[in-house]
Amino acid sequence: MKLKVKILGFQAGGKHIVIIDDDIAEKLDIRSLDRVKIKYMDREIVAIVNVAKFLPGDIIGVYDEVAELLKVREGDVVEVIPAGAPESLLYIRKKLTRARLNAYEAKKIIEDIVNGYISDVELTALVTALHYQGMSLEEALNFTRAMVETGETLKLPSKIVLDKHSLGGVPGDKTSMIVVPIIASLGYIIPKTSSRAITSAAGTADRMEVLAPVSLEIEEMKKVILKTNGCLVWGGALGLAPADDIIIRVEYPLGIDPFFIPSILAKKLAVGSTHVVLDIPTGRGAKVATISEARELAQDFIQLASHLGIKLEAAVTYGEQPIGHAIGPALEAKEALMTLMGNGPSDLIDKATSIAGILLEMVGNRNGREIALHTLQSGKAEKKMREIIEAQGGDPNVKPEDIGIGDKHFTVYAETDGFVFWINNQALALIGKTAGSPKDKGAGVYVYTKLGTKVKKGDPLFTVYAESSVKLHAVEKILEELNPIAIGSGIQAKMLLEKIDTRPEKIITLER
Amino acid sequence: MKLKVKILGFQAGGKHIVIIDDDIAEKLDIRSLDRVKIKYMDREIVAIVNVAKFLPGDIIGVYDEVAELLKVREGDVVEVIPAGAPESLLYIRKKLTRARLNAYEAKKIIEDIVNGYISDVELTALVTALHYQGMSLEEALNFTRAMVETGETLKLPSKIVLDKHSLGGVPGDKTSMIVVPIIASLGYIIPKTSSRAITSAAGTADRMEVLAPVSLEIEEMKKVILKTNGCLVWGGALGLAPADDIIIRVEYPLGIDPFFIPSILAKKLAVGSTHVVLDIPTGRGAKVATISEARELAQDFIQLASHLGIKLEAAVTYGEQPIGHAIGPALEAKEALMTLMGNGPSDLIDKATSIAGILLEMVGNRNGREIALHTLQSGKAEKKMREIIEAQGGDPNVKPEDIGIGDKHFTVYAETDGFVFWINNQALALIGKTAGSPKDKGAGVYVYTKLGTKVKKGDPLFTVYAESSVKLHAVEKILEELNPIAIGSGIQAKMLLEKIDTRPEKIITLER
Repeated sequence: MKLKVKILGFQAGGKHIVIIDDDIAEKLDIRSLDRVKIKYMDREIVAIVNVAKFLPGDIIGVYDEVAELLKVREGDVVEVIPAGAPESLLYIRKKLTRARLNAYEAKKIIEDIVNGYISDVELTALVTALHYQGMSLEEALNFTRAMVETGETLKLPSKIVLDKHSLGGVPGDKTSMIVVPIIASLGYIIPKTSSRAITSAAGTADRMEVLAPVSLEIEEMKKVILKTNGCLVWGGALGLAPADDIIIRVEYPLGIDPFFIPSILAKKLAVGSTHVVLDIPTGRGAKVATISEARELAQDFIQLASHLGIKLEAAVTYGEQPIGHAIGPALEAKEALMTLMGNGPSDLIDKATSIAGILLEMVGNRNGREIALHTLQSGKAEKKMREIIEAQGGDPNVKPEDIGIGDKHFTVYAETDGFVFWINNQALALIGKTAGSPKDKGAGVYVYTKLGTKVKKGDPLFTVYAESSVKLHAVEKILEELNPIAIGSGIQAKMLLEKIDTRPEKIITLER
Repeated sequence: MKLKVKILGFQAGGKHIVIIDDDIAEKLDIRSLDRVKIKYMDREIVAIVNVAKFLPGDIIGVYDEVAELLKVREGDVVEVIPAGAPESLLYIRKKLTRARLNAYEAKKIIEDIVNGYISDVELTALVTALHYQGMSLEEALNFTRAMVETGETLKLPSKIVLDKHSLGGVPGDKTSMIVVPIIASLGYIIPKTSSRAITSAAGTADRMEVLAPVSLEIEEMKKVILKTNGCLVWGGALGLAPADDIIIRVEYPLGIDPFFIPSILAKKLAVGSTHVVLDIPTGRGAKVATISEARELAQDFIQLASHLGIKLEAAVTYGEQPIGHAIGPALEAKEALMTLMGNGPSDLIDKATSIAGILLEMVGNRNGREIALHTLQSGKAEKKMREIIEAQGGDPNVKPEDIGIGDKHFTVYAETDGFVFWINNQALALIGKTAGSPKDKGAGVYVYTKLGTKVKKGDPLFTVYAESSVKLHAVEKILEELNPIAIGSGIQAKMLLEKIDTRPEKIITLER
């Protein structure tokens, strides 16, 4: 059937989607989510059909993806014929019968997801089925490899490639900005990719962006690493395991994530990492609430990683309060820089050197934490960080005081004497976001106290910074209902709670 | 945030969907499938967000549903603010933890589905979860009731309301057109709703439409029943259990149907049916392949129906070949009319009187099948059918020869002597559809033979009718690869294989 193109003028999230009227659909004997082949000149593609009512009968509405591939413009006439379902849809249907998917089937599914051939309905069914049934080790391996193979990969001339990943959820966690230069300054390769904030006030990519560009392409990233051994770049522009972004879009509203571990390990495998330390912030207010949950998760990661040829150890870290004092891109970049220059908060130093230490011991060093601490204190890590900043296109001579912080601010003070006994991570993240973070780089929160800190009435608890007084005022309003720092009696915490490096044996640590 | 309306100009399948640019989404801190509240004048609605790239930044694209509710036109400026997730999304997420849903939760979910508040991703997750976990009886009851309560209902002044439903899948099954007038002529109420063809060459609504209008609204349907005791109308225009249409849209591409039994029973409950006979065509080439499958399915129907206050019995019928000879709306309407006038094929008469007989026995009659047969043979059923045709707006004096059949046709002949040992239902349906059925009412297939019929070389096997020679030619082409009627050695079949009216007891019938 010949139909006239109507350009809708926006994207469909990578999917190949066209819209046709219900009368046309009946004539073609197709329904919503069936496929059609669309031909224009010597080009043809397969697209997913959405059937709509009240579209003019001779029109086919096309999203940008389809328009670009066919090179059609408004009013062009295309030939539309019904097409069969993509092969991978058979495997998704197979999964709905509780079957396990083999390597070929997983590959085909991931390929078709990346190519935009799979509708949201079909993808959601796959994700929900995997959530319900649980992914087998074999499936997880197959999906992980397929995610790597359908994206960009980084090939580095090194047999040993170190890496670090945090499950996140703790405000102010600028640990990567200390770990990467420590590791790189010791001659090891560490191709660190990071995310931007999703639910938090700042991701590592947002923090690092204060000091240097982070939206590098894969070849640019490679150059930085070949020059400096390390990098701190945004993962989003690299095209590593691109299926992940598409899958997350349907996982997010459902609050399920069967692809969680494969997605993370795919990104590590794609940059060639051989030794990975996984930071699992744990505790009340963190993503993982108890050490026993953290252990289970760690075992799943270790098992899958080992089958992928990655040696992975997990660091279960204390996640009940912010790391350091600063929350928000600029405030955190400043604190990280000051820490590298020898003037950092003790919990950040403890966490960063513990994690760097685990990595160093994984590749054969003894006393990893001490080596890391010495590297930090000697100024070697700072020097390396400045090299990385320069290689990524930033100013290597940046001073902490150069970093612009929002000029609108107010401070909240203790209303009573006592100890800080509860810091609400989510509330601090919300305050930072309401102040404008991460979009307004200078917005954020500076927290003066830690859990267990003794405070007197009138002591400052935290200062909120913003670039706009409207946003600062919005923070004042939400603070009428939020109490991010509670005063009472205190406890003191060590940062590293436990290191997990093998499959289960006799674990005698007491449960928190 | 204020955004300018761009009218997309088509529907979103009943859902409230808007499209905004990714930069706007970031500013509003929302992602695809999050909800926004949209205000215009004194009106406001909640809509599901789709985030697109390359949409102009100050624009919000709205589908027809949203435009109609807000009464906005191209260029109008609306206020857009982030809104929380609908309550029912919490229950869908709860279902993903394997929890069972209670009556309130099921109701809320179905309400939000009908109101267009639930995205396809969320609906698919629910459907997939229910498919994986299986619906509990309690959930099935709750969903069924919720589906009824969120749609139109028919209230008739009768304590006993009979009904019939077929699971379909057998070509040429015009049984309802015989059963309804038999039952109605005996003074019982039978508010029969039917579907149009989906994968077949004709649905009962398509067949009946040859004799009378079938797209009645619920009040018109009521008038017909009050006048004649029965009706044969299309279910699609009545608004009964409208959640079903929305749910089927995501079930279809996945090939799963957890709402199968609730959907069917909701439509029966909505018209007030108290006694229902369920026809389960069974056998090779039918939807249900074996009697044991048919029994299991029947038990599920009986159990759920009984909790809903519906007495249901199932008729497992022979489904390995077409019913009667005619396939296609006009051919079938003609055959049904001739059957009512005393000149019908024996298998159709056997099936229709068996099913009518079960219904009659369910409401206290003895020898139901004999009563039904007598009613048919006496001409009472024909008279009743003509009353129904008239009440629905058709010509009560219609004669079989008035019914127009496609004037383009060709006949296929036996190439050898023997018995008909295999009739391919799917192939016959495909031939009918290719010939133009159900859209071209006069298109279809007339099959001269039955399974077991002895044929001689050169005997006619079937004639294909079409309204257009292009379509008839298309049938000739597919017949090069299809052999719908195979000649060899034959068997003879009784139509009613088994009647199932109670929960399992000692069943000693041999498995086919």
